[in-house]
Amino acid sequence: VLTLYELSGKNDERFSPFCWRARFAIAHKELEAAYVPVRFTDKQTIAFSGQERVPVLVDGNTTVSDSWKIACYLEQSYPDRPSLFGGKEARALTRFIDLWATQTLFPPLVRMVLVDVLEHLDNEDANYIRQSREQQLGMTWDALRAERHEHKPVFQQHLALLRRQLRRQPFLAGSAPAYVDYSVFGLLQWARMISDYPLFDAKDNVQEWYGQMAARADRIAAAIGKAT
Amino acid sequence: VLTLYELSGKNDERFSPFCWRARFAIAHKELEAAYVPVRFTDKQTIAFSGQERVPVLVDGNTTVSDSWKIACYLEQSYPDRPSLFGGKEARALTRFIDLWATQTLFPPLVRMVLVDVLEHLDNEDANYIRQSREQQLGMTWDALRAERHEHKPVFQQHLALLRRQLRRQPFLAGSAPAYVDYSVFGLLQWARMISDYPLFDAKDNVQEWYGQMAARADRIAAAIGKAT
Repeated sequence: VLTLYELSGKNDERFSPFCWRARFAIAHKELEAAYVPVRFTDKQTIAFSGQERVPVLVDGNTTVSDSWKIACYLEQSYPDRPSLFGGKEARALTRFIDLWATQTLFPPLVRMVLVDVLEHLDNEDANYIRQSREQQLGMTWDALRAERHEHKPVFQQHLALLRRQLRRQPFLAGSAPAYVDYSVFGLLQWARMISDYPLFDAKDNVQEWYGQMAARADRIAAAIGKAT
Repeated sequence: VLTLYELSGKNDERFSPFCWRARFAIAHKELEAAYVPVRFTDKQTIAFSGQERVPVLVDGNTTVSDSWKIACYLEQSYPDRPSLFGGKEARALTRFIDLWATQTLFPPLVRMVLVDVLEHLDNEDANYIRQSREQQLGMTWDALRAERHEHKPVFQQHLALLRRQLRRQPFLAGSAPAYVDYSVFGLLQWARMISDYPLFDAKDNVQEWYGQMAARADRIAAAIGKAT
């Protein structure tokens, strides 16, 4: 049986975008897993993995960290389960879009919604995140909040790619979701869980895909909730 | 036998980025084609296609315009030839990256090298391009030249995705080139043919892939040159 170590916030909320990628991947592979909470300020729990970031997947004697490596590990280790990619060419192309999502779509999203994360963290974690992120971004929390709206046009511009892709097919991967959908939506699921900030216009054609993916995330969360 | 209508400049130079995508696709499919030149100011030649843009592919009774549609047409019509995508999932993912290349990577590239295109056009075409592009971009040719350097950082930032992708594999599609490589490199081949403006640092790891793709383009051009 698998174990996924994943970030946990206040009231054990599990909102990490990278952990959601792993959650979706495990669900797509129709695998069972135990989901172990890790606090921002409690990295000792995953010290055995030799690094400090979640998600960390443990499968028997194997430990894998990094959401992309986890997806590749699951695909390779469970070839008889539904494919996350659809072949080796598709895997290489998915990686490109996975990087695009993380490096291009995510930064303006972070700037819009990160300020709201503190409400979802206990005091110790909230202090840690506020201080470390203020340092990383080179600005105070108040400045971050004040300029959040400025990042919406850039975010919307990147969404144009999703819009074009979704014009003729319901999912980024085609007629059914695959890892590319989880990679991109995982980031949006994080935003959805920590913030009410409006990301889309009501008529945005991304909405339909977003709704489908959100429903899928909710089903996964419910199933995990029942199992624990 | 296929016929590809493609843009032609001074001395019959064939530099259109979208036509190069089609050239690469035809070569990948190991198909023969006649290559018919079309001048910017001579759109009558392709009026039969019901639109004004090259490339236009004619295959028997079928006419296909738009580089992406041409690639999909070739893949569907010649399934026994080497695949451009590697399956339907890979096709959907390739389309995403094809859009990314056109909508994200291409605009800053255009701003850096377009000013040099006039030297590759006869007077009538040069006047047409200068006027139409000055209007589209909302600036004079001199202003375009003056600010070309400002777009390099944005272009370099988008290249970061290619760099990451090419760190562990020689081509964007994996161990061998596929349509995703042609889609992205087609744009760079245009820049390569019309401008000496330096796009990369000498140590950029994109260089190796770029060199391979440029050599492939030169082989295609030589084969077409011999055949005509």
